[in-house]
Parts: sequence; C-alpha cells; structure tokens
Amino acid sequence: MKDISNKVKIIPLGGLEQIGMNITAIEYDDSIIVIDCGLAFPEDEMLGIDLVIPDITYLKENADKVKGLLVTHGHEDHIGAIPYIENELNMPIYTTKLTMALIENKLKEHNNINNVKRKVVKHGQIINLGCFRIEFIRTNHSIVDAAALAIYTPEGIIVHTGDFKVDYTPVFGEMIDLPRFGELGKKGVLALMADSTNAERPGYTQSEKTVGKTFDNLFADNREHRIIIATFASNVDRVQQIINSAYKYGRKVVVEGRSMVNIISTATELGYINIPDNTLIEIERIKDYPDEQIVLITTGSQGENMAALSRIAANIHNKISIMPGDVVIFSSNPIPGNEKAVFKVINELEMKGAHVIFQDTHVSGHACQEELKLMYALTKPKYAIPVHGEYRHLKRHAELAVEMGVEKEHVKILTTGDVLAIGGDTFEVVDKVVAQGILVDGLGVGDVGNIVLRDRQHLSQNGLMIVVVTLERETNQVIAGPDIVSRGFVYVRESETLMDECREVVGEALYSCLDRGISDWGKIKNSIKDSLGEFLWKRTKRSPMILPIITEV
Amino acid sequence: MKDISNKVKIIPLGGLEQIGMNITAIEYDDSIIVIDCGLAFPEDEMLGIDLVIPDITYLKENADKVKGLLVTHGHEDHIGAIPYIENELNMPIYTTKLTMALIENKLKEHNNINNVKRKVVKHGQIINLGCFRIEFIRTNHSIVDAAALAIYTPEGIIVHTGDFKVDYTPVFGEMIDLPRFGELGKKGVLALMADSTNAERPGYTQSEKTVGKTFDNLFADNREHRIIIATFASNVDRVQQIINSAYKYGRKVVVEGRSMVNIISTATELGYINIPDNTLIEIERIKDYPDEQIVLITTGSQGENMAALSRIAANIHNKISIMPGDVVIFSSNPIPGNEKAVFKVINELEMKGAHVIFQDTHVSGHACQEELKLMYALTKPKYAIPVHGEYRHLKRHAELAVEMGVEKEHVKILTTGDVLAIGGDTFEVVDKVVAQGILVDGLGVGDVGNIVLRDRQHLSQNGLMIVVVTLERETNQVIAGPDIVSRGFVYVRESETLMDECREVVGEALYSCLDRGISDWGKIKNSIKDSLGEFLWKRTKRSPMILPIITEV
Repeated sequence: MKDISNKVKIIPLGGLEQIGMNITAIEYDDSIIVIDCGLAFPEDEMLGIDLVIPDITYLKENADKVKGLLVTHGHEDHIGAIPYIENELNMPIYTTKLTMALIENKLKEHNNINNVKRKVVKHGQIINLGCFRIEFIRTNHSIVDAAALAIYTPEGIIVHTGDFKVDYTPVFGEMIDLPRFGELGKKGVLALMADSTNAERPGYTQSEKTVGKTFDNLFADNREHRIIIATFASNVDRVQQIINSAYKYGRKVVVEGRSMVNIISTATELGYINIPDNTLIEIERIKDYPDEQIVLITTGSQGENMAALSRIAANIHNKISIMPGDVVIFSSNPIPGNEKAVFKVINELEMKGAHVIFQDTHVSGHACQEELKLMYALTKPKYAIPVHGEYRHLKRHAELAVEMGVEKEHVKILTTGDVLAIGGDTFEVVDKVVAQGILVDGLGVGDVGNIVLRDRQHLSQNGLMIVVVTLERETNQVIAGPDIVSRGFVYVRESETLMDECREVVGEALYSCLDRGISDWGKIKNSIKDSLGEFLWKRTKRSPMILPIITEV
Repeated sequence: MKDISNKVKIIPLGGLEQIGMNITAIEYDDSIIVIDCGLAFPEDEMLGIDLVIPDITYLKENADKVKGLLVTHGHEDHIGAIPYIENELNMPIYTTKLTMALIENKLKEHNNINNVKRKVVKHGQIINLGCFRIEFIRTNHSIVDAAALAIYTPEGIIVHTGDFKVDYTPVFGEMIDLPRFGELGKKGVLALMADSTNAERPGYTQSEKTVGKTFDNLFADNREHRIIIATFASNVDRVQQIINSAYKYGRKVVVEGRSMVNIISTATELGYINIPDNTLIEIERIKDYPDEQIVLITTGSQGENMAALSRIAANIHNKISIMPGDVVIFSSNPIPGNEKAVFKVINELEMKGAHVIFQDTHVSGHACQEELKLMYALTKPKYAIPVHGEYRHLKRHAELAVEMGVEKEHVKILTTGDVLAIGGDTFEVVDKVVAQGILVDGLGVGDVGNIVLRDRQHLSQNGLMIVVVTLERETNQVIAGPDIVSRGFVYVRESETLMDECREVVGEALYSCLDRGISDWGKIKNSIKDSLGEFLWKRTKRSPMILPIITEV
C-alpha cells in the first residue's frame, strides 16, 4: 500500500452498488468523520430480508479515530441504519433540528437513545471534529432542513452536497445558500461530491410550490368529492401544501398511516409545519362531515403492501372504504421497481369507483442537469466524485463534470469500499476495505448469508421433498420408511400416482445401496437425492430441494 | 338465468384481470368462435410458475359448438396458449400468414402440429363458421400481419380490433384499412371491442418509420463504434429498419438470441423482411470485421435474466463481450414491472464502458386516444366493450367511448368469465362461467394451486425447520431424536446456541405430551409446532415453516 499518511482518504462504505445505504468515511491522520448512515431495501433476490445496513468493520477497527457522524437530512437512506450502527460505535451525531428529531424517534424505537451524544447544528454553523472543521450549508430537498457539508481538511475543502435541489421559492424556510457555495468556490474547492440522482434529466427541477398550485386546481375541480392524497410521509412541505389547499377550500384534514402521523406530529412540534386550528381531525370523526369536506392524507404512494392506501384499496382498512366518486391523488412518482405495485393499487381503487390522478402532482427533490452545472459553476472543484445514484446516473454526472471543466482524470466513480487518497496532485484509489451490506431479517443482523438465501430461492421456485428413513443400528436394515413429505411442490392429493412413483424410486435407490453393503449415510443420501432428482426432472421438469433424513435406532 | 337464447353472448375467458391471457368466446345458438389464445406471465407472488394459461372448461363443456379459433396477430399474449389448448380442443385455426407461421413454430415445439386444421386468411377475406361470418381487416401493430375482426352475427356486426395502431407510413405492407371500418360504420356496428392499452395517452402513436430515422442518426453519430441494439424479437419492422441502417452505413448484421433468430428466419422465408445479400453474418464471424462494421441485434430489451443482452452485460455470454466504446441501444420501453431489471442491465453495460442509449428509440404498437376516437368516429358502435389493458386503461377507454357519443349504459367493462348477452336492446351480464388462469410449472399444468404457492411463499421468506422424532410403537417412547434440520433459516454453523435451544424447546413440548399420555400424533405435532414457533418468534421475529415428522418403529 502506497504511503498516503499525508493525504485525505475518502471511503464510501455503502451507497454505490447498494442504492440507499449512504455512508461515507473521511479520514486524515488520527481523525475519521462519517457522513450519513442510511439503509437499503432488499433486492428482489434477497428473499425474506427486511433491510440492508452497512458493514462498519473498518470503523470499528478504527473506533478510536471516529470523531462523529454528520447527517445531511432525515430520509431513511441517510439515517435508517443509525440505530444499528450506534449500538456498536456510539458516535456523537451532528445534524439540523428536524433531522435530529427524526433520528431521535428512531433511536427511541430501538431503545438505544441514552448512549448517544447529539448536537443540533444550524445552517451556517461550523463544528470541529479532530483535524476537520465542518460547515453546514443550507440546501433544498424534498424534506426540510437538508444541508450540504463543507469539510475543511488539511488538504483543502471538500464539498458534499447531500441530496439537493435548487428551489428559489421553497415552501418552508429559505432557498439554498448559493452565495456560500460561490464563496467556497472563490476560496478554492478541492473536491465536490454531488448528488447524481437526476443527472440524466435535462433542465431544472421545478419548485415544490408548483405542486401547491396543482393542488389548488384539483381541489377547485373536485369540490363535490372526498379527496384522498397519498405522498411520502417525510415530505413535510407537501403535507403543508395539502393542508393549505384544504383550509382554503373548507375541508377537514385526516392523516392516516403510522409514519405519516409520526412525522407530522414531530414537524408540528418543532414548528416546521403550520396547521390552522380546527383543520386536523381524528380519523374516527370522518363520519361527522360530508365527503366533500374531507381530505385524507395517507401513506402508500409506492404501493407498499401494508401501507394505509393499499389496505384501503384492498378493502381491508378498518376505518376507510372507497366510495364511488372519491378522488385519489398520487402525489409521488413510483420509485423504479415499484411500478407494478402502484398500478395494482390504482386498478383496485378504480374498480371500486374512485377517480385516480397520478400525473403532474409531484416534483423531484433532486437537482437536474442545469442545477448540477450551477453547483459546478459556483464551486469550481479541482476533483469531482459523483455520489448518490445508480451507476448510470454517476456516469452521466461524471460526463457533466467534464463538460463543466473538471479534467477527465480528476473525475472518479468509486465503488463501495474504495479508499480514495486525495490531496495536492494525488487522486487515486489506493486500497479497498471490507464494506458489503449486512442483511437484517427480523431480529437477526448478519445471520442470513448467501447459503441461506440460495436455499430460500430454491425452496421458493420448486418447494421441497423430504425423504425419511429409519435404519437399525446393528444390521443397517430399514425398519421404517422411506416416507416422503413434500411442501410447495405439487398439490399432493391430486398427484398421488406421482408420489407413489417417488417412493418407489427412493426405495430402489435405498435398497440398492444397502444390498451393496453401503453404510455411509452421506453416500446413501446422495444416491437418494440423485435418483429422485433425476426422476422428478424427467417427469415434471422441476427440481425441488430434496432432503433425505436418516434416523438410526 | 335469463332467456338469452336469441342473443349473442360475449365471454372473455381471460385477458382482463390476467393481463396478456387474451381469449374471448363469442356464442350464438349452436356456434362458438374463439378470438385469440394468449398466455400471461406469472405475477410476482406466483413463485416458481413459468406461465399462466386460460381455463377452457367452458369451451370443453361446449366442445361440439366450437367452430374455430381466430387469431388477430402473432404476439405471445395472443397465441402463447394455443399449443396447450389445442391439445384439448383441436379447433381449426384461422389467421394471417405470418401469424400462422409463428403458431406453427409453437405447435412444432410442443409436438402437436399434426392434429390441428389450419387455414391462412388474407386481409379482406371472409370466412364462415357456424352462424357467424368473420372478416379479417388490415390493421397496423408492432408485428406485421395484424388484423381486426368484423364478426357478422344474427344480431349485428361486432368489431374486434385486436391490438392496433394507425400507421399512415408503415414499414412493411399497407396502412390500416380505415375505409372498411367506415363502411362497417355506415352499415351499422352493434359493438366495438377495441384495444385499451394506450387509452391513458393523449395524441397519436408515432409511425414505426420515425424509429428508422432515429437509427440513421444514431448510426451516423457513432461511426467509430460497434453498435448493439436490443429490441422485441417479434418486431419484424424494427429489425428491418436496423438492417436498412446497417446496410446504408456499411455494417454487417449479427442476430443473437433464440427467439430473435427464429422469427427473423420465419419472416425472411415468408418475405416479410428483406435482407440485402452479404449483410447477415454468423456470430462466429464477428472477429473477421472491425468493430465499426458490426451491428448486433439481440433479445433482452426487458432485462430478462437469461436473454442474450443480459448474459452479455453480466459477462457470461460465450461469444460476445462488451468493450469500452460499444454503443448499446435499447429500442424498447420497459414493460411495467421490468424497470429494475432493465436498469440493472444498463448499469452493468455502462460499468464495462458501453455507452447506453435508451430514450427516443421506440414507438408503441397501440392506439393512443386520438386513434381510438378515430375508430369510434368510423365505426359508430351502439355498444362499446373495452378490451386489452389493465383496469385503469379499460376505464379511461370507457370514458372516451362516452365522450365519442356511445351512451353511458352502453359501455361495459367486463371481468373474466362474464357472459354478456348482446343484441337489440339487451346489453347485460347474465351469467358467469369458470375462467381462472391455470398455472404452468415445468411440465405440470394445473398441479400447482394456492396451497402450494402459499407454502412456497412461506418457505421463501423464512425457510424451514424439520423436527424428526422416532417413537416405539408399543410404548410410545422416544427412541431417536428429536433432531432438527433447517434450510433457509439461519446459517447454522454460526447459530449453534440457537439450534441447541430449539432442540430443548422441542424436547420439552414432546415429553410434556408423552408424560400426559398424549399419543395422538396430530396433537404432538401441533404442540411441537406451537412451542417452537413461539420460541423462534420471540427470539428472532421470524416464522419459518415448522415440519414435525414422527416415525414409528
């Protein structure tokens, strides 16, 4: 390994191949700071897995260096893994007010609140951690209180944008602090790590306020119907705008879905959302008002199975049923992979007579190409390290950086675990640390690996056949079985012939072994597996998992 | 049941809730004709299922009435189930030339070609089947030789469009026979059954020829790179246009992917595609030409796991590897549900240095709103029955029909199995026949049902635990076990304590039963299941399938 003791090291510990699991370590000498700590949702092939969290072996090995965790905003893909990681590392947390409140809700749920030092930071404030100084800079995003970080290192300033967009007319608070990015650019920025999510999209992302106008129009057009709006629980500004339209058009607001209720209550407490008196009502009081005086804000905009809107659509919600005439607005776009689930919910709603509106009622929270160009124009970085996005986004971002004047050799797309040394003329991946996602299944963290997943995959496709045989210890004679139990293979009652044939095939294999004096159970099991597997493939073109179990008495 | 003996009956046997499984029976007196016979691909929750075919119980029960199968075009969702259904019904098949050739390929694969009477029909031709006369009318679609059907019934003319679009400048053959639809409208159309797929999209679908211009531009812009184009195997016109551009820019064409090779060879034989001499080369000869003289046409535009492009992207294709600079064009849109798979392939291609183009290189094969309006304006139907599409599409189509002057009560969205009586002033669902999809898994047709699927689902999420106990027949004493075998649950070697605890819990439950003199195996098994299940849920928040197996010796 090259000597990089006098360089800054940037180490993404997730978030590249594992979309969502955003976490980056920045190291110099005896100091490490960590930016964000998100979780990823499982890939389709990770059967039964609930979520994926970062592997922090590197941080644990260097625990004495770790000075703190800096969080850019309060989305799951940036804060979701904090309770798991804090259990092991106990890093002080630094972030803005709303983000901290959302983190505290999480820590409470996981019962590990007391251990962690927390400090709320204001935009513009600078904190000192080891040999780093970190400045929080105001940005705009689809959740309020987002921040970019300017990290002052001994080798220069690194700007990390977090997720951001440029909103000149934000619903709450101020617009992104563009002048500060300009000032930093004039001082000289060593590296820019900017949000790539929308790097494929030309133009600008529209202001959140445009959605408010759309809501006003929809409320005006649908005065005679109940209105149901599904959106992301964390989009406080979106909820504010729905409440504004509701108030304007004389409707009461009902909030449904646990995460939605929680975030609105936190945001209200902290003054990030402003609800006029007598506007919010409990769900039980819906029946006291005519339909046209109700708007229901709900979770489930991604078609999530157990979310409120999905349960309403499937008619299994205990308090709300769709009535013909209901207007249901999806104030969201489906995240790739969720399209089918979203369309399923839409179909179900329409079958019950609802009118579903799912276009032009959402704006993104991420910078499009022109905003990214603006960020490069202001900060003029020497080096560019695209972050946040799939590879296709990172690559388009890398091209854009070059278009904006960064030298081609000064742009790098990292993979998880890369150790990038940066400073002066050094800009090089010098090492790789262990940094794979860790699977969480129920209470188990890391106890499900590839073998277990492969078994689940196998079982899910073809089910299983268990063959049970009892042998007598001394004589090696069969005294019970072979019996066959199957699950997830065929409907046994209608396939009795097949099951009889299976028993025959197994019997032949078994007795042929015993007749030849084979007493090694491994060999007997393999023989049964092979014979039965071959037979089943010929007869059914299927390969269930075959589990021979031999008992000795 | 109402007397409808003098009415026509329209019976969708699939294709509504089961997208893709298009099949409709039309019945009058002693005659039944069947329109299309497609298959559906399994829903996400149908684990291990290969495809879904229609339940034709109703047709089998009325086999003597069934006069023939009319096929509108050669896509899987209209012809895919024919080999399965013909095995049981042996209906004569009537369709256009290319469609028939594709059906014959299918029958050959399934070894049931000899039994089926087949007649190739030309556009404009009329055939007589029982009391019906059926006219094939030329339409445009994303596969050539598509037809609409005008069905002359004793109660009036029913027009079924099949999948269609209006292409004034088709690549091959002529434009849709709009005047004939007009003539029928003047005669009087009883009912229009039209394609709803794009009913949500305003405007017109663009001509297939526009894609040819895009290819020309892309070939001109990328003269120095190898070009790889993924598209739908069945889109013969698309392939023709790629070949045209290739020829124009001096490139050799290689075709890869089994279905692509098959369809191009069939289409070439029948004269639906025109390949200049010395343009097509075998894949083995790629190395004889420089990259910039090659274009590869391939399957895999939907990110299908085993398709050629996916294998190329994953670096497991035995003849093609991606080289930096390769230009890969997706001439397709992802079908809802396939987005994530497509993006995965794109990411893999870009990681290997390819430049991927996946926008503006595809046009749809289905009519948008203005084309649908045109169809209504020409045919002026008394009744409208939207077909082909998810519920949201059917509903938007229904609204459009009303906008076009069909009375609201004269528009009906059917569900699978509905028996719609139509004729005179009757337009009413009078009955419901059995018509659920039948699951095909390997060679098994219908042997996997809900119980098997529920078991696969259960196994896929949490794996299983098998508990084996051997009891002595006379005394009911335990003489071996309890032993525990698990699969897909946890990685056992790292969870030995947990497994030990499980054995203890099972032992307690077992001996507690035996001590109380319980000898009913069902009760013993339930007790083991309950105790172990409860223990595991508490300890791990997981619920594996628990299978107690008791052997008696």
